[in-house]
Amino acid sequence: MTDKTNVLLIGAGGVGTMAAYNLEAGGQASVTAVLRSNYSAVKVNGFTITSIDHGFVKEWRPTHILHSVPDVSNEGSPIYDVILVTTKNVPDISPMVVELIYPAVTPNHTSIVLLQNGLNIELPIIAAFPTNPVISGVSLIGATETSPGHIVHDDRDRILVGAFHSPISQIPEGKSIAAAKVFASLYSASGKVSCTYDSNVAFSRWRKLIYNATYNGVCAITGMDTSRMRMAGFPIEDVIRPLMWEIWRIARAKGHELPESVIQDMIDCDPWDTYFKPSMQQDIEKGNFIEFENIVGEPLREAEKLGIPAPGLNMLYGLLKIKQLQIKESKGLVILPAKGDPTRPMLQFIKQKDVFLGPDCKFEAK
Amino acid sequence: MTDKTNVLLIGAGGVGTMAAYNLEAGGQASVTAVLRSNYSAVKVNGFTITSIDHGFVKEWRPTHILHSVPDVSNEGSPIYDVILVTTKNVPDISPMVVELIYPAVTPNHTSIVLLQNGLNIELPIIAAFPTNPVISGVSLIGATETSPGHIVHDDRDRILVGAFHSPISQIPEGKSIAAAKVFASLYSASGKVSCTYDSNVAFSRWRKLIYNATYNGVCAITGMDTSRMRMAGFPIEDVIRPLMWEIWRIARAKGHELPESVIQDMIDCDPWDTYFKPSMQQDIEKGNFIEFENIVGEPLREAEKLGIPAPGLNMLYGLLKIKQLQIKESKGLVILPAKGDPTRPMLQFIKQKDVFLGPDCKFEAK
Repeated sequence: MTDKTNVLLIGAGGVGTMAAYNLEAGGQASVTAVLRSNYSAVKVNGFTITSIDHGFVKEWRPTHILHSVPDVSNEGSPIYDVILVTTKNVPDISPMVVELIYPAVTPNHTSIVLLQNGLNIELPIIAAFPTNPVISGVSLIGATETSPGHIVHDDRDRILVGAFHSPISQIPEGKSIAAAKVFASLYSASGKVSCTYDSNVAFSRWRKLIYNATYNGVCAITGMDTSRMRMAGFPIEDVIRPLMWEIWRIARAKGHELPESVIQDMIDCDPWDTYFKPSMQQDIEKGNFIEFENIVGEPLREAEKLGIPAPGLNMLYGLLKIKQLQIKESKGLVILPAKGDPTRPMLQFIKQKDVFLGPDCKFEAK
Repeated sequence: MTDKTNVLLIGAGGVGTMAAYNLEAGGQASVTAVLRSNYSAVKVNGFTITSIDHGFVKEWRPTHILHSVPDVSNEGSPIYDVILVTTKNVPDISPMVVELIYPAVTPNHTSIVLLQNGLNIELPIIAAFPTNPVISGVSLIGATETSPGHIVHDDRDRILVGAFHSPISQIPEGKSIAAAKVFASLYSASGKVSCTYDSNVAFSRWRKLIYNATYNGVCAITGMDTSRMRMAGFPIEDVIRPLMWEIWRIARAKGHELPESVIQDMIDCDPWDTYFKPSMQQDIEKGNFIEFENIVGEPLREAEKLGIPAPGLNMLYGLLKIKQLQIKESKGLVILPAKGDPTRPMLQFIKQKDVFLGPDCKFEAK
C-alpha cells in the first residue's frame, strides 16, 4: 500500500493511455489499467508512446494491467479512489458504462471521472451511483492508437473538469466540486499538461460539441479529414458551418451563451495540414462502432425537446445510424431475411452483451 | 444505305447498350455506338447480355462501333436521324453533352434524345441546337455493366418519352412532339419493351427524382443498398421518406401535382431482396464520378428559387459534393498545398477536358 491515489482506468486507447501516463508521471497516482483489444500487445511490449507533451516513451506500462474490470467486493481487492472512464459511449450497442464499472465502484468513496465525448453521458451514472461524485472531463487532446499499444499523441493534452450536477445525486454539490478539484490537481501534478477545474464545465462540453457533432460526424460519413475540408472551402461553408450554427443555437436554448466567434474557432481548431481524422472517422476506418448517439443524437433530442430546428443535424444523425448498422453487420450482429421470402421480413439484430470487456477475461496483475 | 433510322448512341453502359440492342431488335434502326471504356472489350468479344426482356445474348455488336463521336461534316460521313444520349451528366467535371455531340448533330434534322437522369439537362442542349427536336427520355430500366461489355439487365425496360419545351427553341412544339412519338414507335418496334409517348414527361421526370434524389444520393453517401434500408426500416423513416417529401413539395411548387401515394410507391419500387444499388452508389464503388448536380443540385436550386425549404436535400447535396471531390482526388485532379506552407493555401483543381471521350480516339467502323 502506498499513499498514492488509486486510479482505475477503463479504456486505454489514445486518450486513456495518455491520461494514465500523465497521472503516473505526476507521482501522486497509481494507475491500474483495464485493457481489452491491446491487452496482449501491452502485456508483452508495453506501450510505445510518441507524445508532444512527454516525448518518446518506450515499453511503458502502468502500475497494474488487468484484462477485466476488478470486483472490489473480492477479499483482498484494493479499492479505487478514482475510476477514470475513457471508453467510447455506444449505448445503442454495448453495455452501458454503468454495467461496466459497477464491480469496481465503492459507494460513498470512488470518484467517477467521465473523460468522454457527448451529451447526457452522466445521467445513467448518477442514477446508479448516487453517493459518488461524478466528474465531467472535457479533453482537447489529439491522441491516436495507431496499432495495439502504439500511441501517437500530436495535439497537446488539455483537460477541463467539473462536477456533473443532478437533482438525483445524494451527495452535496460541494462534495462533487471538491472531488473535481482534487482530480484536476492530481492530473496537473506532472507539470506537463494543463488540467483546469471549470466551474461551468457544461458550457465547455457544449463548446466541444460544436466541433464533435459536426466535423466528427461529417468526416465519419464522408471519409474526408478536416484539412481537406478547409483546403477545399465548400465543405465548410455548405456543410460544417451550418451544422455548427445548429449546435450553437441548441446550446443557447439550453442556457449556454457560446460566443459567435466559437464557430470560426472550432472550424480552425485542428492544425492546418495534419489531415486530422476525428475519432468517429477513425472508428469507421477501423470497423469500430461509432459513438454518434451521445455526440449527435443527444444534442438532436435536446433540440426536439426545446423546439429548436436542427434539420441538418437530423439528416446527419440518420446517416450515422445507417453507418452504425453497417458496422453491426460487419461484426456479424445482423441477420438478413431469407432470400425470396414473400412475407418481406425485416432484418434482425443480434444483441452483443460485451463489446468492451468479454466474460472470459481474467484478473492479472503486472 | 438502308431505309432504317440511323441512330447514334453516345454512352454504352447498361442503359445505353440495352437501348441499342432493343432498337436493333425492332428491325427499324441501325445503331452506331460510340464506346469508350469498353471499346476494346466489345471490339473483340462483343457484348454479353443477360436480359430480363431479351434473354441471354452472346457476342452481340451494334451495326457500327466507334471510339469517338463522328464528325458529320466529313466527306462521306452518314448523317444521324437520332442521337441517343445515355451518358451520365457530370457538368461539374466533364465537357457538357453539347460539346460531346456537337460534331454529330445535323441542324434541322437530328432528333436529340436525352435518356438521362436529372433536372434541367435539356437547357444547354436546346440553347446550342435550337433547330433540333430535343426529347426527354425517362428510363425505368435496371441494367448494369458488371464488367466491360457484360450487361446484366434485371429490371424491365420501360421508357417514357416526350418533348422538352423551351421558349428558346426555334422549331414549333408540334415538331418536337412528333419526333418524340416517332422515337417511341421506333423503340417499341421490338415488341419486347414498353416505350410510351408521355405528353407530360416533365411530371414523370420529377416522379423519378423522388427516387433518384433520395435513395440514389443516400445509398451513394452511405454505401447501403435499398433492400437493407427497407429491411432495417429506420433508414426509410429517418432519412429517405423525409427527403422524398422535400422533392415532392418542390415538384408541387413547380406545378407537378404528384399524388401523395408516390412516396410509398417509390420507397417500394425496387424488388424487395435484390439488394439493389442505385447508379450513384455503383459509381462510387467503381471510383466513377457521380451525377449529383443534375439529380440533387438542380432540384435544390429550384427549391431555392421557389422559396421551398429543403434542408435535408441541402445537407445531402453538400455531402455528395464532398464525395465528388474525393473522386477527383483519386483521379489525380486535385493538388494539395505544400506541407507546412504558412500562407495556408487552398487546394487546386486540375481541369479535365475529356472524361468520356479522349482526344486520341480514332474513327473505326465495324
